[in-house]
Amino acid sequence: MRGEILAIGDELTSGRVRNTTSGLAARCLFAAGHEIVAMTTVGDMPALIGTALHTALDRAQFVLVTGGLGATSDDLTNEAVAQALSRPTTLNHEVRAALVRNGVALPNADQKAGGLEKLAWLPAGAKALKPGAGMAGHLLVHEGVPVFFLPGVPHEMEELLADCVLPELRRLDPGGASAPRQRLFKVFGLPETEINRRLVPLETAITGLTVGYYPVYPEVHVSLTLRGVATDDRLATADRAVREALGPFLYGTAADSLATVVGALLRQQGLTLAVAESCTGGRVAAELTAAAGSSEFFLGGVVAYSNVLKEGLLGVPAAVLTDQGAVSIATATAMATGIRERTRAAVSVAVTGIAGPGGGSPDKPVGTVCFGLADAGQTRALTRHFQGKRWQIQAMASQQALDLLRRRLLGLELGAE
Amino acid sequence: MRGEILAIGDELTSGRVRNTTSGLAARCLFAAGHEIVAMTTVGDMPALIGTALHTALDRAQFVLVTGGLGATSDDLTNEAVAQALSRPTTLNHEVRAALVRNGVALPNADQKAGGLEKLAWLPAGAKALKPGAGMAGHLLVHEGVPVFFLPGVPHEMEELLADCVLPELRRLDPGGASAPRQRLFKVFGLPETEINRRLVPLETAITGLTVGYYPVYPEVHVSLTLRGVATDDRLATADRAVREALGPFLYGTAADSLATVVGALLRQQGLTLAVAESCTGGRVAAELTAAAGSSEFFLGGVVAYSNVLKEGLLGVPAAVLTDQGAVSIATATAMATGIRERTRAAVSVAVTGIAGPGGGSPDKPVGTVCFGLADAGQTRALTRHFQGKRWQIQAMASQQALDLLRRRLLGLELGAE
Repeated sequence: MRGEILAIGDELTSGRVRNTTSGLAARCLFAAGHEIVAMTTVGDMPALIGTALHTALDRAQFVLVTGGLGATSDDLTNEAVAQALSRPTTLNHEVRAALVRNGVALPNADQKAGGLEKLAWLPAGAKALKPGAGMAGHLLVHEGVPVFFLPGVPHEMEELLADCVLPELRRLDPGGASAPRQRLFKVFGLPETEINRRLVPLETAITGLTVGYYPVYPEVHVSLTLRGVATDDRLATADRAVREALGPFLYGTAADSLATVVGALLRQQGLTLAVAESCTGGRVAAELTAAAGSSEFFLGGVVAYSNVLKEGLLGVPAAVLTDQGAVSIATATAMATGIRERTRAAVSVAVTGIAGPGGGSPDKPVGTVCFGLADAGQTRALTRHFQGKRWQIQAMASQQALDLLRRRLLGLELGAE
Repeated sequence: MRGEILAIGDELTSGRVRNTTSGLAARCLFAAGHEIVAMTTVGDMPALIGTALHTALDRAQFVLVTGGLGATSDDLTNEAVAQALSRPTTLNHEVRAALVRNGVALPNADQKAGGLEKLAWLPAGAKALKPGAGMAGHLLVHEGVPVFFLPGVPHEMEELLADCVLPELRRLDPGGASAPRQRLFKVFGLPETEINRRLVPLETAITGLTVGYYPVYPEVHVSLTLRGVATDDRLATADRAVREALGPFLYGTAADSLATVVGALLRQQGLTLAVAESCTGGRVAAELTAAAGSSEFFLGGVVAYSNVLKEGLLGVPAAVLTDQGAVSIATATAMATGIRERTRAAVSVAVTGIAGPGGGSPDKPVGTVCFGLADAGQTRALTRHFQGKRWQIQAMASQQALDLLRRRLLGLELGAE
């Protein structure tokens, strides 16, 4: 179906907040086979909201409106829509009951009030999408065109889009064009241009295939989109070709992260892990603990940001720190073996480097990072040089540590020392 | 002046590429005193481009069109505009000469060709903005309304905006409104609706003031925008009123984060810090080390994700873990004192809780988090209950730990145990 997206908020038209919601919605809708004709952003002005909504209603088969549904005084979407479509806001008893169930204290039901009560006053005819889920969102069918009102907060919008909007659109248009088939691959350690060079032949070799490249620092994600009939065979062919072209740099697909891939390998192999971090300051541990169930394999670790703690908590010999420096193969090795001994983990990884902007030297410039890996078999250490701002070097070092673990657990080449 | 922005490209409406150009343009224009009424994105379809351009021309005092100006076959902006405004594309000799000067080999000047020659064919009446600069960009005044055509590449757009568009707008409207003044405040620990309730009176009390509310989980950011003359006095009044209304919940302004505020306080007071984390899995340490110079006050810490490490690396007594549990006031206290002793830090903070989705019990549901604070004077511990998904509980717990540190360093109330 042909749709339009309308985003509402002064913070967007003043450029103070970047609108990531519309692009995310467009991507999800496109992936489900819909076509987005136009995306419009207007400020919190009822007249403009009304005009933009009418324009969208005139030419689209469905409309998505995001933002301005909250309980604060600058949230004007419902009032503006009520005016523009001559549908006065009315109290939605289902939403109100859900608010009360969630412990919100409300005044009498028959009087229109401010505050959270505002969330329950919707344009006449609107149906709440997911009452009680703790987020705004409703559907209004106006002159046959479904208009979905969703929160501007990206993760809330995404949840309602997946759970309510896409199923409703499918119901309205059961015989619609089949969705293009998409597959997403995640790559670490290869530049975008090199990935492009390796995959360019695929687009001519496989009919109807589009390859997309999305740098998601410090990774690159690659999408395959296939349209037409008999896509399964071509998708399988494309999948094999991508895997062959990218080899060990391809670490996973859509739902994976480097941390979840490492976690799955540790689980499979019945191993526990501990980490010792300096310049990444806890990022490796934070990545590993983002997924539920990480306590099955992740014991914990030490953030030895100061040299005193590298010595005190990890047992790095003072002489190593003095002679070789905190950023050295010897320190990374001692950190990895130190944390492994102290935690009795089966495997350990250590990171120590210079994230900048200060602290570099001609010998060890900003971006120099040493890694250590230890397990029952052996200990390995290596140095890498990264470019960029502090946050980029920290992100790159953290993902590099996870990728080294992944390669070690898979028995792949780790690269030069 | 009131303007509109029109972005063109299939890669934007399919969500494959995130449109950062429109937001960047809006920010620059807003900062220069202009008001963006609407921002629209349409795909590479001439009819849609035409409609969107007419809509913008009807209501705006100027229009910015970005994207689709290049030399490849999917760059359709000039052709679409030529059709929509009945201004056939004509060869712009200035642009052509600049291309030749830049070493581009072109066919005879009198025939319309593809390839780079395409860059020189502009809608009749258009004037090149910066011929010879190696980037497309032109100005077309249509029925009195200036329409600026700029590249979609953000840094090119930004350069032409600053060098050509803003000066031209200033020339057209020399007596225009001065730029609005903005101030951004960051708030932790108060719901958005309560902040709104406290600040609503300001908008009526202070002429020309607009207050915006933006949840940036788990914080809320509040913007003040002031237009008109004598803004300095009113801004100072608004600033004082906001600080008074929000009290200790207001932790900083635009450039601050909770971690940088904590860092500045530690520096001022000459104190060092160490952290002991369980459910936040390294997030507190990662926040603290995101800013350069954090090694001046941050020593490091322990991520004691497993109970074995709480005992082994932090010295939490086994009896406490068995009798009170890992998520308890007693464990949080022992973690805080344990990390402080082992690192000799002046101040320490500890976090232990249940991030979920598993691991909860009727007694200690998912979202229960205990915090410990220790310094030379005393040790404090308290329990908080958070709602939401795993990542939200982890983010909330991490920011709560930093906010407790901030309050302790400022001598503010920490709240109930």
